[in-house]
Formats: sequence, C-alpha cells, structure tokens
Amino acid sequence: MAGSAEPSSGSPDGGSRSALYLPGGEPAARRGVVTGSHLDSVIDGGAFDGPLGVVSALAAVDRLRAEGFVPRVPIGVGAFVEEEGSRFGMPCLGSRVAAGVLPAEKALALTDRQGVSLRRALEDDGTDPAGVGPSPLLAKMGTFVELHVEQGRGLTAPVGVASSIWPHGRYRFTFTGEANHAGTTLMEDRHDPMLTYAMTALAANKQARLAGARATFGRLSVEPNGTNAVPSTVTAWLDARAADTATLESLLAAITRQAVERAERDGTTVVVTPESVSPIVDFPAGLRDRIVGVLDGAPVLPTGAGHDAGVFSAAGVPTAMLFVRNPTGISHSPAEFAEEDDCLAGVEALAAVLKDLAK
Amino acid sequence: MAGSAEPSSGSPDGGSRSALYLPGGEPAARRGVVTGSHLDSVIDGGAFDGPLGVVSALAAVDRLRAEGFVPRVPIGVGAFVEEEGSRFGMPCLGSRVAAGVLPAEKALALTDRQGVSLRRALEDDGTDPAGVGPSPLLAKMGTFVELHVEQGRGLTAPVGVASSIWPHGRYRFTFTGEANHAGTTLMEDRHDPMLTYAMTALAANKQARLAGARATFGRLSVEPNGTNAVPSTVTAWLDARAADTATLESLLAAITRQAVERAERDGTTVVVTPESVSPIVDFPAGLRDRIVGVLDGAPVLPTGAGHDAGVFSAAGVPTAMLFVRNPTGISHSPAEFAEEDDCLAGVEALAAVLKDLAK
Repeated sequence: MAGSAEPSSGSPDGGSRSALYLPGGEPAARRGVVTGSHLDSVIDGGAFDGPLGVVSALAAVDRLRAEGFVPRVPIGVGAFVEEEGSRFGMPCLGSRVAAGVLPAEKALALTDRQGVSLRRALEDDGTDPAGVGPSPLLAKMGTFVELHVEQGRGLTAPVGVASSIWPHGRYRFTFTGEANHAGTTLMEDRHDPMLTYAMTALAANKQARLAGARATFGRLSVEPNGTNAVPSTVTAWLDARAADTATLESLLAAITRQAVERAERDGTTVVVTPESVSPIVDFPAGLRDRIVGVLDGAPVLPTGAGHDAGVFSAAGVPTAMLFVRNPTGISHSPAEFAEEDDCLAGVEALAAVLKDLAK
Repeated sequence: MAGSAEPSSGSPDGGSRSALYLPGGEPAARRGVVTGSHLDSVIDGGAFDGPLGVVSALAAVDRLRAEGFVPRVPIGVGAFVEEEGSRFGMPCLGSRVAAGVLPAEKALALTDRQGVSLRRALEDDGTDPAGVGPSPLLAKMGTFVELHVEQGRGLTAPVGVASSIWPHGRYRFTFTGEANHAGTTLMEDRHDPMLTYAMTALAANKQARLAGARATFGRLSVEPNGTNAVPSTVTAWLDARAADTATLESLLAAITRQAVERAERDGTTVVVTPESVSPIVDFPAGLRDRIVGVLDGAPVLPTGAGHDAGVFSAAGVPTAMLFVRNPTGISHSPAEFAEEDDCLAGVEALAAVLKDLAK
C-alpha cells in the first residue's frame, strides 16, 4: 500500500523507488527518521498537494548526501497512496494501512463509485493484494516528518511548522422523497428531496461562518437525475472541520437540525451517516519546538487539512510537519501554486531538520 | 425512428410489428387515422407512460376487428422512441423525426451523457441510420389520436379529452466558481457555485408556486464532485412549464434574476442556456368537441406534460388526446398506476373514437 519499504542496508539507493537509506551506525539501537507525503490528488486537483512532499524528501536526502552527511540513524522516504480518498472514499488510505491502523482486509474490501473493490483494482493492475499491510519500516520509524504545501493563506513566511490538524468529519446525508413528473405534479403535491438538500447546503455555509469553521457540500448524487422528473433521492456528502471537537460536533448538530426541519416541511426524510471522523491531532510540542529552533523561529500554525502525518501521529509515532507558503491559498484545484524559491526553501528546511534528527 | 410504417394494403396484419392496417375503401382519396404513443420511459420511471397508449391502440384495433368493423380510411398504430429524451436529451425525438420537424442529420448527431451519438448507438444496435427520417405514413395521416395515462390528479372520470399542452422549457444553468480545498479555504474566501445553485433551486420552487406553474431542478452535474473540494462548476437543468407562454417567460426571468443576484454575492457566475422550448399546443376545438360528443361528454382538461401528440399537432396534423385517470397523480416513478377498469374504459373510448373517425 504505502511506498515506504524496508531499506536494504549497505546500498545507498535502497533498492526501491520509494525508500532511500543513508547507512548510519547502530540501526537496531536507534530508530530511524521517515519523511514523505502522497502522490495522489483530488479529482481535478493541483500539482503540489502532496507530490511536493515526496519530491522535497528526495531532494533533501540528495542534498545531505551531496554534502557528505553521515546519519547515525536510517532515513527513509515514504510515498503514500489515496491520501485524498478520491477513489475509495477513505482519506489517508495508504498511510492508515502502512501505520497499521486500518486492517488490510477492511482496506481491500473498500469499493469505488463503480463498485470495484481495492482488491480487484490491485489485481487488475498486476499488484498482489497480499502485499497490502503495515509497513515493515514502522518498527524502525522513530520520527515522521511530512513537508506539504500550505492550503490556506495562513502562512506568510516561506516555511512554517504545524501545531495541529483540525478534527475532520465526512458525513453522508441521504435525502429521500418521491419521484414524480416535473410537468404535471403540483408544487404543493411534491416531496422533493432536492429542496431539502438545497436548504441544507445553505444552512451548512451559514453555520460554518458563525462557528469560524468549515462546511462544504462538494459531492452529490441524484436519483434518477432526469431533467423532467422530481428526484426520488439526493445523496450529498458534507465535509466539516473545526478547531476543536466540540465546535465540530455542534456544527454538525446545527446543520442536521436545519435539514430535519426542512425535511418535515418538504415531506421528505434525511439520514446522516458519518463515513469518517478524525479527531484533532496535536503534534508533540517538544519535537515541534526543536524544529522551530532548527529553522530559526519559523512560524507555527494549525491546518484544516488532513494529512498522512496525522495518521502516524495518532498511531503513536512522534510526528512533525513543515508547510511551504501558498501565496493564493488555492488548493485542490489546478490553480494550486507555490513559488519556486519557497519550494527550494522547503527543501533546505527539510534537509536541516533531517540532519538534526539523524545526527 | 418512429414505429409508424407504410401499411401494406390487403393484409390485416400489415407485415409490421408497429403498424396495423384495416383495409378500407379509397385510401388515396381519404386520409387515415393514426393512433399510438411511446414505449420508452424516464430513467426509473413507471409502466404506463407511454406504453399504455401503444397497448391501448393495439387493443382498440383488435376490438374493432373482432366486431367486424370495416373502416373507410386506413388506421395505423405508431410507437415512438425517446419521447422522454432520457438518453439523447431531446424530448419527443422519435415523433419529431417522424413528423419531419427534426432533420435526420440533427437527430443522428445528438449525443448521450457518455458522448455516444444516436448514429453510433443505432449502428451498434445493428440498425441502419439511413432509415431515420420522416415517416412515409405522414402523407396519409389525416388525424392523430394519442391515448396516455394522466400524470396529475386533474381527471376524476375514467377517461378525459385534452384541451392543450402547456408550454415547456428545458434550460441549462451553468454555475461557475473556483475549486478549492474544503478544509483550508476560509468560508469568506470561497467562490462556491453550489451555494448559488442551492439558492436558485429554492427560488425556482417559490417562483413556480407564486405563478401557479411548475419548476423543477431534477438533474445535476458537479465538478470535480469530490467530498473534500469546493466545486468549480455545478450544472443544473431547469424544467419549467406554465399555462401560457407569458407566464413561462416571466417565471424563467424571475428565477434567472435571483440566480444572478446570488452569484454576485458568491463571486460566481451563472449562464442560462435554453436546450428546448416548446410553445403551447392548443388541440383543434372541432376535433376535440367531436370526440367529447362520441364519449358522452367526457371531461376536458389541459396537461403540463409534453407528448408526441403535441409534435404532430404543431406539424399541422389534426390531433387529439385521450387521458386515462391516474388515482394518485404519481408519474415518472415506479409508483405510477392506473386501475385496470380505467385502462379498459380507455380502450373502449379509443375504439369508439377510431370508429367515428374512420367510418
């Protein structure tokens, strides 16, 4: 699943596209440092989230090797798949499996929108599903450091350090009404779930603004989805995030309450199903402050985006994140962008952090 | 395209699944009567709209033959395809081609949601696209009578007669904003076309109620349609109908005005493209009154639904419609229903009308 792999000691190239190993002393006694990110993107996404973290990891290791740095612990590079959950609906799928928090059987049974399971997709691709499971690198992972492009406009310096990842929930709202003829059914005789959905989408926006949080309906499925039929069902996915769990829960409750009220008015029903809820991730303060010191007082900021780093942190691996400035704040869009100078500053910073952690 | 075909005189079965011929005198001097409807349905539709009209046509002709009725003009049965426009987006596609109001080249170039053209679909089905064109029966079609299940609750007698078909428009609303990250983008930094759409859907419902008309958003397409991305584009299809053209136009104008106002607030844009607009069809009063007389004063009512009969009427063929009662008013749904007794009364009524028109 994950690109992280057992480093083959003695070979500077590691024998794997996705894992590098700088030979150091006492690898059994000391625990290694892993850096990396993911190569997948959202549908119609940009070029930086998260390939920047993989490319920067490789470039930082190249830089350390070029200057002849000899680490005292192994340094590994991981490239994780399906971080966005775009195909199989589970964010951080690769890192969850690699970190051992998602059993392989559950992962392999996930299906995409066409009903194709991950197991089937791997087999069709010529990949043995038996290889899916916790990374063998995990036992040697003393620290995980992920570099990522910032995804808002919260960072004004070229490079920053993460304090936390906001709690994040994905909830499926199923609005059910009654299919009917768009031309002959009186407006007052309808049970149109599209109206209940529309009201809920506006309520989500308003409640998120009031709470200083985020709420987005970005994915929809309409049945039967015909121009001349009142829909029978509208399924809509809510992405909600807030600075703390209590705010996230009250945000979801407020949106659900407005949806239910409108459903009563429309003669429809609404069912809310949590698909994934990730608690807040507070990165360890000691590691964070050490990195801030290495980077001469780089700014510290939270993020509303989920990351593979959050999975490793929740799995008990001491974890840190570096952010590279995003001048427009645009992300999950082809317009996503970071300046070349800032990307190079990110590589410098990551190299300095790896050097400090592996010295 | 259309199932109507040249009757082969002398053979009571006509040599075709979809055309029957009862030999009568002077077929060249008198013009024939065609009855029928369509066999296709909306996606996830019911069993009555429009197969009831095809089945009743065949049953009515059977009944006339059983009683030994000899018509003085030919009676034909037509079964039209793609009346709902479910696949190629053009309602009454089959009857438009059969009636000569839609050129074959334009019809064959229409594409479905997967980009497959009608020409390609016919070829893949082993049907020669060269056969698509005006029906040879058209020149002999003196009258067209369509029986159809009623699609609202406007008919309380078993059988009724149509006065008119409401004008009907299908309009594509393209809402364009800016794709962005659902977790990191501040609510106030977004240009989210889903919000503009949601407000427009609610406005359409309100304006239709105020106008005593119908407005439905039943079909949607969202880009990129990812749970964790603010959409870049929402495309929504408005189906709007009203008792007269002026009301339809002011309904569309009111909905468009509210969409544009909300777009300004959301920092999005909206473009409205008419895909098909059908004017009102007033069935000829003389033919209608004659049929009401044959049916002992059956009730007369307009319909908000489009029909193949509307196409033939607009093409200059004297046209009438019979409706069979719909006890629930539900249509374009698997729950669509008509009582068996009412369906049999419909066959009786259609046989009586055909007898009167062909005597």
